[in-house]
Amino acid sequence: MIKVGVVGATGYTGVELLRLLSGHPQVELKQVTSRSEAGNAVAGLFPNLRGVVDLTFSAPDINQLKNCELVFFATPNGVAMHQATELLDAGCKIIDLSADFRLKDATEWTKWYGQEHASPALLEQAVYGLPELNREHIKTASLIANPGCYPTAIQLGFLPLLEQRLVLPGSLIADAKSGVSGAGRKAALDSLFCETADSFSAYAASGHRHLPEIKQSLQMVGEEGLDLVFVPHLTPLIRGIHATLYATLKDTSVDLQQLFSDRYRDEPFVDVMEPGAHPNTGSVRGSNICRLACHRPQDGNTVVVLVVEDNLVKGAAGQAIQNMNLMFGLQETTGLSVSALYP
Amino acid sequence: MIKVGVVGATGYTGVELLRLLSGHPQVELKQVTSRSEAGNAVAGLFPNLRGVVDLTFSAPDINQLKNCELVFFATPNGVAMHQATELLDAGCKIIDLSADFRLKDATEWTKWYGQEHASPALLEQAVYGLPELNREHIKTASLIANPGCYPTAIQLGFLPLLEQRLVLPGSLIADAKSGVSGAGRKAALDSLFCETADSFSAYAASGHRHLPEIKQSLQMVGEEGLDLVFVPHLTPLIRGIHATLYATLKDTSVDLQQLFSDRYRDEPFVDVMEPGAHPNTGSVRGSNICRLACHRPQDGNTVVVLVVEDNLVKGAAGQAIQNMNLMFGLQETTGLSVSALYP
Amino acid sequence: MIKVGVVGATGYTGVELLRLLSGHPQVELKQVTSRSEAGNAVAGLFPNLRGVVDLTFSAPDINQLKNCELVFFATPNGVAMHQATELLDAGCKIIDLSADFRLKDATEWTKWYGQEHASPALLEQAVYGLPELNREHIKTASLIANPGCYPTAIQLGFLPLLEQRLVLPGSLIADAKSGVSGAGRKAALDSLFCETADSFSAYAASGHRHLPEIKQSLQMVGEEGLDLVFVPHLTPLIRGIHATLYATLKDTSVDLQQLFSDRYRDEPFVDVMEPGAHPNTGSVRGSNICRLACHRPQDGNTVVVLVVEDNLVKGAAGQAIQNMNLMFGLQETTGLSVSALYP
Amino acid sequence: MIKVGVVGATGYTGVELLRLLSGHPQVELKQVTSRSEAGNAVAGLFPNLRGVVDLTFSAPDINQLKNCELVFFATPNGVAMHQATELLDAGCKIIDLSADFRLKDATEWTKWYGQEHASPALLEQAVYGLPELNREHIKTASLIANPGCYPTAIQLGFLPLLEQRLVLPGSLIADAKSGVSGAGRKAALDSLFCETADSFSAYAASGHRHLPEIKQSLQMVGEEGLDLVFVPHLTPLIRGIHATLYATLKDTSVDLQQLFSDRYRDEPFVDVMEPGAHPNTGSVRGSNICRLACHRPQDGNTVVVLVVEDNLVKGAAGQAIQNMNLMFGLQETTGLSVSALYP
Repeated sequence: MIKVGVVGATGYTGVELLRLLSGHPQVELKQVTSRSEAGNAVAGLFPNLRGVVDLTFSAPDINQLKNCELVFFATPNGVAMHQATELLDAGCKIIDLSADFRLKDATEWTKWYGQEHASPALLEQAVYGLPELNREHIKTASLIANPGCYPTAIQLGFLPLLEQRLVLPGSLIADAKSGVSGAGRKAALDSLFCETADSFSAYAASGHRHLPEIKQSLQMVGEEGLDLVFVPHLTPLIRGIHATLYATLKDTSVDLQQLFSDRYRDEPFVDVMEPGAHPNTGSVRGSNICRLACHRPQDGNTVVVLVVEDNLVKGAAGQAIQNMNLMFGLQETTGLSVSALYP
Repeated sequence: MIKVGVVGATGYTGVELLRLLSGHPQVELKQVTSRSEAGNAVAGLFPNLRGVVDLTFSAPDINQLKNCELVFFATPNGVAMHQATELLDAGCKIIDLSADFRLKDATEWTKWYGQEHASPALLEQAVYGLPELNREHIKTASLIANPGCYPTAIQLGFLPLLEQRLVLPGSLIADAKSGVSGAGRKAALDSLFCETADSFSAYAASGHRHLPEIKQSLQMVGEEGLDLVFVPHLTPLIRGIHATLYATLKDTSVDLQQLFSDRYRDEPFVDVMEPGAHPNTGSVRGSNICRLACHRPQDGNTVVVLVVEDNLVKGAAGQAIQNMNLMFGLQETTGLSVSALYP
Repeated sequence: MIKVGVVGATGYTGVELLRLLSGHPQVELKQVTSRSEAGNAVAGLFPNLRGVVDLTFSAPDINQLKNCELVFFATPNGVAMHQATELLDAGCKIIDLSADFRLKDATEWTKWYGQEHASPALLEQAVYGLPELNREHIKTASLIANPGCYPTAIQLGFLPLLEQRLVLPGSLIADAKSGVSGAGRKAALDSLFCETADSFSAYAASGHRHLPEIKQSLQMVGEEGLDLVFVPHLTPLIRGIHATLYATLKDTSVDLQQLFSDRYRDEPFVDVMEPGAHPNTGSVRGSNICRLACHRPQDGNTVVVLVVEDNLVKGAAGQAIQNMNLMFGLQETTGLSVSALYP
Repeated sequence: MIKVGVVGATGYTGVELLRLLSGHPQVELKQVTSRSEAGNAVAGLFPNLRGVVDLTFSAPDINQLKNCELVFFATPNGVAMHQATELLDAGCKIIDLSADFRLKDATEWTKWYGQEHASPALLEQAVYGLPELNREHIKTASLIANPGCYPTAIQLGFLPLLEQRLVLPGSLIADAKSGVSGAGRKAALDSLFCETADSFSAYAASGHRHLPEIKQSLQMVGEEGLDLVFVPHLTPLIRGIHATLYATLKDTSVDLQQLFSDRYRDEPFVDVMEPGAHPNTGSVRGSNICRLACHRPQDGNTVVVLVVEDNLVKGAAGQAIQNMNLMFGLQETTGLSVSALYP
């Protein structure tokens, strides 16, 4: 049993992590910390965990956390980077679900996150936790930068095309749509039911923090000259991301279906649908599956990849557990085999 | 491993049953039948089961079904009653998720369901599958009438009060609200997104088929003179039932909290919340939990019980599996321990 | 043209009032005040009013407001009671959409609203603005206490029964369901999309502020011994209230349909549906209509009245304008004839 | 008063047309026909029109319709083309909200709509009813092909760029998202609440009927070589379309804000937002406004235009009335000045 602590589990990513960890056969959940909820029962805040998680939130105490073999950070950006070094030195492994270790360049990080990076030295050490890209490195990592929700979907959709250099690298467009849980569990006017239900809009069209994370990865696998236009949208879903990806094919004779099928044949959590299919976010609700299909409208030179995931699972907590399984030598799918909830 | 067949699994109850059965460690799913989908992959119709259920729908064939130890009927009303006798004679056990065997009185059944009952002799033999009421009979039953969704919530809320004869038996009111999945997966104008989203209404206020089912059970545990007003409503949820129950207390000095806690202390799937609590359907989404809380507004003589369940789980497929576990001597919670999906 | 000011129009009631006032042919909107938004364009905060309302929010200034003939307060509770006297003395008329003047008893008001009442002397003078109950008094009033959303629906449903003394006065139950806009436009965890979408729950079952308001009115029209159990619920609607009302009939021979038809025949905004009907909130979205239908399930002695309204229109801003029309001698329906938006 | 008939008003476009026509000061609604609902009250089918529309559906009778000065067809595709000639010959004007007259090329029409065109001769005569493109021709037209919902939003977003030849004509991408009302009011599994709520997907990525309509118009205003990738999506909205448009700028020094402001300065129903803005569909719910904003992410050479409209108003019924106003010499905004319903 892996002794696990969770720091800052009062958000949607955190509660989803607790739900999945509580069903994981190799995990012993030792500590769940929250400054604001210290002393309160976890299941009091999250009634879905009544009878499932018996712990009480404790105040964050790094010495207590050192007793864990693995610490998840489900904190806002800017927290994990202050505590990681001490925990790593104490022999803990870390999976950070925030953005603190996702970018390799501290200056770039500061530009997008608006603060100095507290542990730039760890940026190099941190392993980007996208198993489909980085599995071997993850297995031996001590510090995992768990990918963002948009980047997971967008990378999984573009990777096969870029790895094989089949598209013009400057032609990438990612039109992505997210459910409201992506905005987190915090009191904010923009996330009210009355603001988001029965309405649809883009946001951050001029630049979203996930852009540099996506570009960093895609640049590493593809050729020179990568450029990406990324427009996120808010859609009235609780959970779910749908990325619609566009790129210009260099050669329209490529067999896209074969390409994607081959690339993801052995991946337990990437499901390539048949030609002509349209994945829907409802089919991955609550599961760790990333489901995709590719199209070439009017047999033209634009490839369209449709990608769905549950932003809280494959886009956050589920992927974190997938990383944990890899780091601790467990079967990669352990604790993650639950089917999506439909309808 | 229990060899299991599912008849008619193209509805929401059916797909939920398949989801839960596919995660059950003691079940071998042998056959899934559908007249309309015969020959098609189950996972083609229900993409959430891709990679989880590999079966193809087969045409209903009672001789094939006889190879199963247990057959679930997830069919429309009026199907199971035609096939039950032959299957029972062949030694199969049956759990019927439709209404065919829920009423003991064939005349009453005909009145509400608009057709002659094909197997009135089985009505007596059938065991009403509400474990919290009928556990011992279920263990030895061959034919289970799995309760309706409304009846499950309403009975669990009223039972403690009636068993102890604490309320006036003619004073019961059940104001119940259901998500749209209760209307089933069939093309119907009234269930369209544009008709049900952002709208709320009562329906069948003059009489709903679940009324006689509820009264039949409550009459058996309580005193003479039971009467119930039952008004169902449609609310823009996918899943979930909320029953708000009202009754007039004979004596306001009763400790309601103690009553409910005692009654359900050993029940794995009934969760009594603390005084003053308000259960929400979101906290049971996808789980087999029935969660309730009781109130006595303004310290008056009206008791109010708030009850929530997922209509497709505790109100249908989950309860069916709970019954299966009891019938086959398994631990009652096997395959049903997944937490609710929140948010 | 009536010179109108609106104080505190940054909430959902406020923006709905502006929408309706901007389409009213006899209104000149002079001032819209907000402490937090002073200096900002109204249409910047509320893009639906772009091209419709050209005003800028101004800081509240009672001397400026005195130039208006009519001032609406769309403020939180506890604001209007501090400014009403000075405005009335200056000759302004006031319609208060908050709760400040709804109760006649200052002690009771303090009990439910948690603060001393600043102008208890005005409580007697204030006219309760439910036109169907109080039309003649409204016509000559200077200070209108605009009813709450729940009280409007519940009173309109119970009034005919109580006026004619047809039900046991101690038997009233109001099971009411509200859309999320009823919670207002303020950053609050409980009103987030992810907390309220796809979930349903009761709240304040032990006592809601609208209870004394409802009882105060119903007591005035009925006989001794009135008692009411009122359980509000939150349902995933943007707008809409559905009240399901229960009462015990003294005599089941009464013609309920006739009763309601007669009572509301001349009311422009109360629509009595045919027997057996089930009004839905979608049919009143955006309109000032209160639509209702009555039932007597199983021909028993419980009458069930189903009532729907748009909580922001007939339950707030529309009713306020209806009151304005009465106070200024206009046709009661002026500016309120827009049909509901369906779907 | 214009004598108006509506053919086939049992869908969402039809009921919206009735709502708007009933509030139009210059319209006398003479006839509403429906084969399936003949003899039933319009307000019985559509309770939002109770007290607003007193007509009964009549069986379609072309001789009766000839008494109208203007006939709207809100029928499925393939109906209007059979009746138009006779009505035109009788002196009626026609606005067809279906697709029958939108394409100039009968062969192309047949390819996308799967039937022979019954009146190919009228295709040339029909005027495409997008006032912002075609105002002068509309004024004198007898037969209007009212544009589709997607085409309206997409054309209004691309027109300024193409007219000025600022973008590469082969680089156009339209990633469009529609509410479920776009699928019409017909019993279909895919439009059920449980299939569409809390889920998001693309559809018809390989080719949607609105594609040739869009291309036909854009080709006429732009230069050679126009090509468009159009991917529609279904999003859990009742009403609303959001089009996210991408094109490659020839020259990044162009002032996009100025371009759009100038193009639409005098348009009553196109609202160009300030730089950096993100229009949301909620801000146009129920109104005839098309609201847009343009972006140039990372100051690159891709222009992104965000466009929203209510698919049933500016995308259908509202635009039809705008066309009617032009055809009959009324002020273009008559009957269309109602503000959007927010929240």
